Amino acid sequence: MDNLQVSVAGGSGYAGGELLRLLTDHPGVEVQQVTSQQHVGHPVAQVHPNLRRRVRLNFSALVDLRPCDLLFLCLPHGESMGRVRELSNLAPKLVDLSADFRLHRADDYRRWYGVEHTAPDLLDRFVYGIPEWHRERIAASPWVSSAGCNATAAILALRPLYRAGVVDPGHTVVDIKAGTSEGGNRVSDSTHHPLRAHSLRSYKPTGHRHAAEVIQELGEGNPIPLHFTATATDQVRGVLATCHVFLREPLPEKEIWKIFRNAYGNEPFIRIVREREGLYRLPDPKLLWGTNYCDIGFERDPGSNRLVVISAIDNLVKGAAGQAVQAMNLMAGFDETAGLGFSGLHPV
Amino acid sequence: MDNLQVSVAGGSGYAGGELLRLLTDHPGVEVQQVTSQQHVGHPVAQVHPNLRRRVRLNFSALVDLRPCDLLFLCLPHGESMGRVRELSNLAPKLVDLSADFRLHRADDYRRWYGVEHTAPDLLDRFVYGIPEWHRERIAASPWVSSAGCNATAAILALRPLYRAGVVDPGHTVVDIKAGTSEGGNRVSDSTHHPLRAHSLRSYKPTGHRHAAEVIQELGEGNPIPLHFTATATDQVRGVLATCHVFLREPLPEKEIWKIFRNAYGNEPFIRIVREREGLYRLPDPKLLWGTNYCDIGFERDPGSNRLVVISAIDNLVKGAAGQAVQAMNLMAGFDETAGLGFSGLHPV
Amino acid sequence: MDNLQVSVAGGSGYAGGELLRLLTDHPGVEVQQVTSQQHVGHPVAQVHPNLRRRVRLNFSALVDLRPCDLLFLCLPHGESMGRVRELSNLAPKLVDLSADFRLHRADDYRRWYGVEHTAPDLLDRFVYGIPEWHRERIAASPWVSSAGCNATAAILALRPLYRAGVVDPGHTVVDIKAGTSEGGNRVSDSTHHPLRAHSLRSYKPTGHRHAAEVIQELGEGNPIPLHFTATATDQVRGVLATCHVFLREPLPEKEIWKIFRNAYGNEPFIRIVREREGLYRLPDPKLLWGTNYCDIGFERDPGSNRLVVISAIDNLVKGAAGQAVQAMNLMAGFDETAGLGFSGLHPV
Amino acid sequence: MDNLQVSVAGGSGYAGGELLRLLTDHPGVEVQQVTSQQHVGHPVAQVHPNLRRRVRLNFSALVDLRPCDLLFLCLPHGESMGRVRELSNLAPKLVDLSADFRLHRADDYRRWYGVEHTAPDLLDRFVYGIPEWHRERIAASPWVSSAGCNATAAILALRPLYRAGVVDPGHTVVDIKAGTSEGGNRVSDSTHHPLRAHSLRSYKPTGHRHAAEVIQELGEGNPIPLHFTATATDQVRGVLATCHVFLREPLPEKEIWKIFRNAYGNEPFIRIVREREGLYRLPDPKLLWGTNYCDIGFERDPGSNRLVVISAIDNLVKGAAGQAVQAMNLMAGFDETAGLGFSGLHPV
Repeated sequence: MDNLQVSVAGGSGYAGGELLRLLTDHPGVEVQQVTSQQHVGHPVAQVHPNLRRRVRLNFSALVDLRPCDLLFLCLPHGESMGRVRELSNLAPKLVDLSADFRLHRADDYRRWYGVEHTAPDLLDRFVYGIPEWHRERIAASPWVSSAGCNATAAILALRPLYRAGVVDPGHTVVDIKAGTSEGGNRVSDSTHHPLRAHSLRSYKPTGHRHAAEVIQELGEGNPIPLHFTATATDQVRGVLATCHVFLREPLPEKEIWKIFRNAYGNEPFIRIVREREGLYRLPDPKLLWGTNYCDIGFERDPGSNRLVVISAIDNLVKGAAGQAVQAMNLMAGFDETAGLGFSGLHPV
Repeated sequence: MDNLQVSVAGGSGYAGGELLRLLTDHPGVEVQQVTSQQHVGHPVAQVHPNLRRRVRLNFSALVDLRPCDLLFLCLPHGESMGRVRELSNLAPKLVDLSADFRLHRADDYRRWYGVEHTAPDLLDRFVYGIPEWHRERIAASPWVSSAGCNATAAILALRPLYRAGVVDPGHTVVDIKAGTSEGGNRVSDSTHHPLRAHSLRSYKPTGHRHAAEVIQELGEGNPIPLHFTATATDQVRGVLATCHVFLREPLPEKEIWKIFRNAYGNEPFIRIVREREGLYRLPDPKLLWGTNYCDIGFERDPGSNRLVVISAIDNLVKGAAGQAVQAMNLMAGFDETAGLGFSGLHPV
Repeated sequence: MDNLQVSVAGGSGYAGGELLRLLTDHPGVEVQQVTSQQHVGHPVAQVHPNLRRRVRLNFSALVDLRPCDLLFLCLPHGESMGRVRELSNLAPKLVDLSADFRLHRADDYRRWYGVEHTAPDLLDRFVYGIPEWHRERIAASPWVSSAGCNATAAILALRPLYRAGVVDPGHTVVDIKAGTSEGGNRVSDSTHHPLRAHSLRSYKPTGHRHAAEVIQELGEGNPIPLHFTATATDQVRGVLATCHVFLREPLPEKEIWKIFRNAYGNEPFIRIVREREGLYRLPDPKLLWGTNYCDIGFERDPGSNRLVVISAIDNLVKGAAGQAVQAMNLMAGFDETAGLGFSGLHPV
Repeated sequence: MDNLQVSVAGGSGYAGGELLRLLTDHPGVEVQQVTSQQHVGHPVAQVHPNLRRRVRLNFSALVDLRPCDLLFLCLPHGESMGRVRELSNLAPKLVDLSADFRLHRADDYRRWYGVEHTAPDLLDRFVYGIPEWHRERIAASPWVSSAGCNATAAILALRPLYRAGVVDPGHTVVDIKAGTSEGGNRVSDSTHHPLRAHSLRSYKPTGHRHAAEVIQELGEGNPIPLHFTATATDQVRGVLATCHVFLREPLPEKEIWKIFRNAYGNEPFIRIVREREGLYRLPDPKLLWGTNYCDIGFERDPGSNRLVVISAIDNLVKGAAGQAVQAMNLMAGFDETAGLGFSGLHPV
């Protein structure tokens, strides 16, 4: 089979860089072009120095994109919606990594993003790109919208329990710990090293936009309460989602196990992590840097009906570029794990 | 007035070291002796190198302690209960920094610590050492038990709201982020640098012992539900308590303000931190390293009845040695802020 | 004695913030005004959040500065030279923290800074502000130029040996490890957290401007070779200077000791750190965060004539604001250590 | 071709873990057994949690090792020399990652390690395992001794210049910055997180054992002076070698370029990194985490005859497990880069 010809629109950011790392080592793909507004004509490896000797392309301008088999959009949030019609002429398949097509209803953009969506008629053309829950639809769809990082961690942790009907949904609290690469590559006071180092900054106690994706996926279309808070740490990569859910009935641990095994027993990128002892009893994002895994664990509070579900991902891989490649694999008929084999480093 | 003669039993650990730093610069105190099991005869500054040129004492053996005016106990948890009777003969006043006398009921030690308390008759002789809530009793008591670090952060954040009767208590979630110095100075895999660096480790999703103190102080003697989870970060110092509480009624922000102002408006060590913009809108423990402050902020979720209350302390100061000095100041009739004037570093 | 009235021109940067922290707690000083270009009218504590409740001033405009007893200049490098004449009308004493008056010869500004000095006639009016070597001249001078951070660390480490005539000066290598706060508070790619975290960046293998100060102080006016290299670490504060010097003759360690004791035996802010065992055998800047100490240690290579001298400081204190306060203390007749008593934190 | 059957003796440490990560993904290798003294019978993935789902082996006892094609020894320093005769019966090829066979002369063990070598007759049976300099001999040898991490960084930086005869060797200073994983997985005060975090610890100003390897390789058998100093940082992985060399004659940069290009122009794992501008002008170990690259750059001091050569590696990969796999590839006739394709993460 000929290699799939792919291009990346907006490849100078962190998700774009990860995408290039993964695509370059992918056995069935050839990267045709990578665009950047700011770096046209410069070597890709100047911006992504880990790709020295690996990627020999220079950045192209967006207007110079040629037709390809599949186009990844890593444009800033808010830009995809204006360009997708035009860009979709270049490729039969699109994977959009921005937030612009994750929510199904234009109303939700108004509410959570405070903007009027400029292409509301296209919203239902995109499939929400979490393969574990929408595998068949992703495989069949020309357009996929890759999920938000914090949302991915929370949805993968909670959806099995919501589907199983065991959650009393009124008081679910999702307490996210997020790294510094989430903010992207634009410098700002919030990521100025002397200020951000060692910081535990409650940047979104309420109102985090990723909550909208979680509500959409857990409520399956119905409005449900969700109490979502995000704290910025000084890890560069990684999301830890500590999810406090209250069970309708006092389920024993083995029932919880069963629910997760049924949901994820055959998933190549989800590991249920729940050991009796040692340091690695529960998920820790540092073990996942560079990998496409989502590790999920849990603990029942013996003194109440609370269940704490903990999930960890690398925000740039399973939370962005890796999940996008996983979607591409489904869309192109590759093995779902192709190009996503890195096992992570220890210690690091 | 003559200086208060104080000694420290168990001064080689981290809380002991902080205590020596604070006492050495205290205008009304003279440190008479410092004991250590392992370092008898060696200079204190060899173990606490920040005290080079500042503390010229050598460590003494516990059996060589002489009478003094006030004795601090920084012994390992579980040792104070066996020694307090004997040690109390040395000084008319005691401040115990261990967990051994924080809970009022022997039953609670059985339940939360899994041990039989060996001096249950002494439990009610100790006042729980959070001056903001027990100032008069601390001033009048010969024996004070200094509060746990995570407990201090949670209690200071929540007690005003519980007292005001505005909390629906069934689903309060306290999500603690804790630093590496909490584990003390004994080496272990959990604090081995290559493993702990960059870690976000869910070490106590449920069952954290400090929850017992919070329940005691919020319930004021009555059993109440409390959902307490602790995650270890790789900050050396600092506790961030993200407290998710559900209000009985949809109180506006200004009512919340009023509750906190009433509780803490005159407190020298509590700052209500809630700015409209900028990086420092809410508390961050890194600003408090070395200080005795507890910074408290909050945010109302406009879409629900949730209130997120956020508090930050330095676990070794307001969460241990500083709070103990604050108690000593009350017990000895000093200005409550004496020796606790360090304002913290920025940036750091 | 009435308090000394001081003002700070350019108080929104990191050195300015440290200066305010130190001056606020200084027993003999009152801070009259603090200027900022960008934050006029805003509370100082909004920019330096550690000073909440400690400093109640708002920032003034530079043009609104009133006469005072001593004026600190913390203006950006290159601005002091243009403004010093005018500003010196406001106060009989000046301490300049910029680089503009550290070098005695206008030629050296051309060579090391690539600029033409605009006030060359004033260069010899400033005393170079390292009190350990210029105490009497600082005390007698109206104008003092505070030394560079990396230069301070290197000069304090090496000048005793150069003065003693024991160094073969041709191959001295100063290998500096510097923290992220050295770059100041302006955001840039080089201090963007995801890029700077964990970085060991050789930002000045050759040509570092602070070398000019070291040459001036070690050569005492004569040109000498000096091989100076700086590597950026991701510590926020701290300079470690690893100085490799080659001795003219194979001096034993006790002779080295004698040289350092003679030079610094009575210095309040210099500690010779050289222990036989343990973790703290040699200086480490993390122990000095917030303090005005310079710790100095050394090790003789038994197999050659090399001596490794190691010094550590906090770049914002002994390398900037603290050393400036130390100079002020001398200029105003205070105890040299006044306001500089913080002993540092451990662990941190 | 059948897979090469390999086993790892001593696979519970950090180098052993990296070896397993690399071997598991190697296209021509099957890992047969992994031994551990402490973890016999337990899953490998319990000790190396990044290998969950990737490695399904349990640890074996050393005595239960079966014959294989190639045996890696990751035993503690000092143990290999006693066991190599016996273990060599199990496999026709051995790669030893310990220090026991890196030096060619028993005298050097006495001098640098302070021990009597117990198998001096075997020293010359081992080839020193830096493929860039001993490729043919490694390919032909049954026994290879993998080089030390700091030594690898220094040798790769300097050997081209020494070979070219351009160095005045008397005053070469190698200033190493080393991470926390170098100390291995045994807990100790020196790697206790609260103490090690943010530390810049001059742990070996003189007398570092890796200097012996560098002298051996640069002197090519002749004793030469070398001034070697190591400072511990708090990076988990990575070595940065800042090498200050003095040139016999004032060579221009392009001549230096030529020397390095001649030496390494075709090397798959060496990249000459020397850009005119930007953050990545020179090597930084953080870019190399997990990779087998050695990045090398340099800068000529225009004001003297000094040349600063800077090299960076991941101590656990090019400095240990990766270099061992590279040797294995040569010994087994694989492509030299097989299994070593990871490109590293950015940002991280």
